[in-house]
Amino acid sequence: MRDVAVIGVGLTKFGDLWETPLRDLFAEATLACVKDADIDKKQIQSAYIGCMTSGLFVAQEHLASILCDYAGLNPIGATRVESACASGGAAFRAAYLEVASGASDFVLAGGVEKMNDGADATYCLATAADQEYEVYHGVTFPGLYAMIAHAHMHRYGTTAEQLAAVAVKNHRNGAKNPYAQFPMEISIDTVLKSVRVAEPLGLMDCSPVTDGAGAALLCPVEVAKDLGRPFVKIIGSGHATDSIALHDRADLAAIPVVGRAARRAYEQAGVGSKDIDFCEVHDCFTIAEIVCTEELGFFERGHGGPSAADGLTALDGQIPINTSGGLKSKGHPVGATGIAQIAEVFWQLTGQAGERQLKKSPRLGMAQNMGGSGGSSTVHILEVVS
Amino acid sequence: MRDVAVIGVGLTKFGDLWETPLRDLFAEATLACVKDADIDKKQIQSAYIGCMTSGLFVAQEHLASILCDYAGLNPIGATRVESACASGGAAFRAAYLEVASGASDFVLAGGVEKMNDGADATYCLATAADQEYEVYHGVTFPGLYAMIAHAHMHRYGTTAEQLAAVAVKNHRNGAKNPYAQFPMEISIDTVLKSVRVAEPLGLMDCSPVTDGAGAALLCPVEVAKDLGRPFVKIIGSGHATDSIALHDRADLAAIPVVGRAARRAYEQAGVGSKDIDFCEVHDCFTIAEIVCTEELGFFERGHGGPSAADGLTALDGQIPINTSGGLKSKGHPVGATGIAQIAEVFWQLTGQAGERQLKKSPRLGMAQNMGGSGGSSTVHILEVVS
Repeated sequence: MRDVAVIGVGLTKFGDLWETPLRDLFAEATLACVKDADIDKKQIQSAYIGCMTSGLFVAQEHLASILCDYAGLNPIGATRVESACASGGAAFRAAYLEVASGASDFVLAGGVEKMNDGADATYCLATAADQEYEVYHGVTFPGLYAMIAHAHMHRYGTTAEQLAAVAVKNHRNGAKNPYAQFPMEISIDTVLKSVRVAEPLGLMDCSPVTDGAGAALLCPVEVAKDLGRPFVKIIGSGHATDSIALHDRADLAAIPVVGRAARRAYEQAGVGSKDIDFCEVHDCFTIAEIVCTEELGFFERGHGGPSAADGLTALDGQIPINTSGGLKSKGHPVGATGIAQIAEVFWQLTGQAGERQLKKSPRLGMAQNMGGSGGSSTVHILEVVS
Repeated sequence: MRDVAVIGVGLTKFGDLWETPLRDLFAEATLACVKDADIDKKQIQSAYIGCMTSGLFVAQEHLASILCDYAGLNPIGATRVESACASGGAAFRAAYLEVASGASDFVLAGGVEKMNDGADATYCLATAADQEYEVYHGVTFPGLYAMIAHAHMHRYGTTAEQLAAVAVKNHRNGAKNPYAQFPMEISIDTVLKSVRVAEPLGLMDCSPVTDGAGAALLCPVEVAKDLGRPFVKIIGSGHATDSIALHDRADLAAIPVVGRAARRAYEQAGVGSKDIDFCEVHDCFTIAEIVCTEELGFFERGHGGPSAADGLTALDGQIPINTSGGLKSKGHPVGATGIAQIAEVFWQLTGQAGERQLKKSPRLGMAQNMGGSGGSSTVHILEVVS
């Protein structure tokens, strides 16, 4: 396999983008990415685009063709990739493998979702759960993650205040991110007193419904070296699946798919959790960040909650988590999220993260993207090349 | 890039499979494929599954995870791939690239669609066209292909009888295929007198609505050699996109995306159209087969219709097309079609095509899969290894 680099990234602003059609979102992120990488877009040979459910949200499938055509990439080979909320991470991995294989030199990994065009977002998102064994019986995602939260609280003593600490920290980071949908700081009290969605999760424990897109450009490290611009190297790529229905899991207080994907990425990279300088984690709900930081090996099982409350995951903490603001503050356009995580890791590693730039120059960054209640996950480890 | 082999394939029967849920369809095809390849399914490391729109047809996304879990492949990395009716071909290409890269040895390429569960199939399929510029104004796929047919008739003098000859030939082949949805022979008169759908296309010019699944197992050629069983080698893989809206095309009597994908496959394989012994072509409508056989280089532009009528594409013709019965007779479960084409090529090349086996032992077979009205296409060339 060839070594693969990320040479540029682009994002749209995340938010309620009523006036921007789906195809424009993708074009905007792609053109920003091409500009960032400073290449001619005619050099792009292939694209993989993560999107969860444009069919349900805006009645448009055949997505990679229409998006690439509109972004001026026609007639390259282009494929839409879906793994629920891990669609962006899966698209990034597919692009990585195509460059690694030698089939193409310049491959775009994109992600997009337009969730505010009128479709019932709760219904659309619920199609990431088991339709026949979960959704039909009335459960949707806040309820599924509430079950995980209850199990974690019962087993380890995790508290509502610890969950709230995740939201507060992510909004503190997101307030420094010009792309964030909700860039305002909040207090523990705001979270605890927010409207209940599914006990113990309130509105401020939940990531929002978001329109947005992202893109990253990949090429062989040997080619990147000649471009004379900052780049990062992909040193680990892990991908795993699990049952998408919670009833088939042995332990509701764990999300084992994340640990499996992480082990594959660590093994490929030849590093361990202690070597990672910071990580973008899939915080679709506050409890998800707590469980995932345990699965990724940053904390012992049951220590995720206290660690968040004690500031170990803050910008100046032991292992900064979601410097971007995470899904909670930055927003969660589901197909784009995995690519937005890569963008943040790229910016931090190349010193372009602005007000939220980590003080100790980070060398290894990680991005962990997750589908549904843990039915799929990707983990990528990126290294800055100095 | 490593050389890659196909070592086994599996299909479900195609048809109205009311009593078989989506997940069972995939599991049935996958288990048949694993049995055919004679490996332990624990050896499979990754999967790519083509499906156009399970979200709209059966309200289930996060598809690769749920299908792999149900087929006993959990916890491998698994990704659903969508490119409308070319989803199967795109999944096959992604699997090919992962094996070629060296990341994995055994990768499954699957495809599935369940179209008869009650959703409005015409609406669901129309999401493969441009929602804002085509579908909103009332056109659906029979209408789009009718425009292509009119243009081809006007430009080249193609006749309704020549279109009908495609359907008659494909039903003659499909009648020999135990997996076919409509395995009966028909006459030219049956096609010409069939209920009009969109002039000049009647019902018998159109492929049917179908439930079904397919799977193919890929591994490095070097590994396949040690398995001691028949295999075929992938020597060319082409993928291209175009505008999905017809109004953006220069010539309605052509489908240029097919020619582009074919040129990439021919170039990689180092062969030309004259070297291909037979081809599975995306005959979603009779006119599609005629135009595609021209784009693939088997016939000069405008000669596709007369060639079909003159028997050049029959089982014993100059270039047998759709020995399986094609989408027309075998059926068209859209996400599975590209994989079913690979299965037919595999069976013909390894002498396992039963009553429809080509007499002159074929050496090179081709599979051409297409999305929408030509917004995407994949072309694969496979060679038997003797």
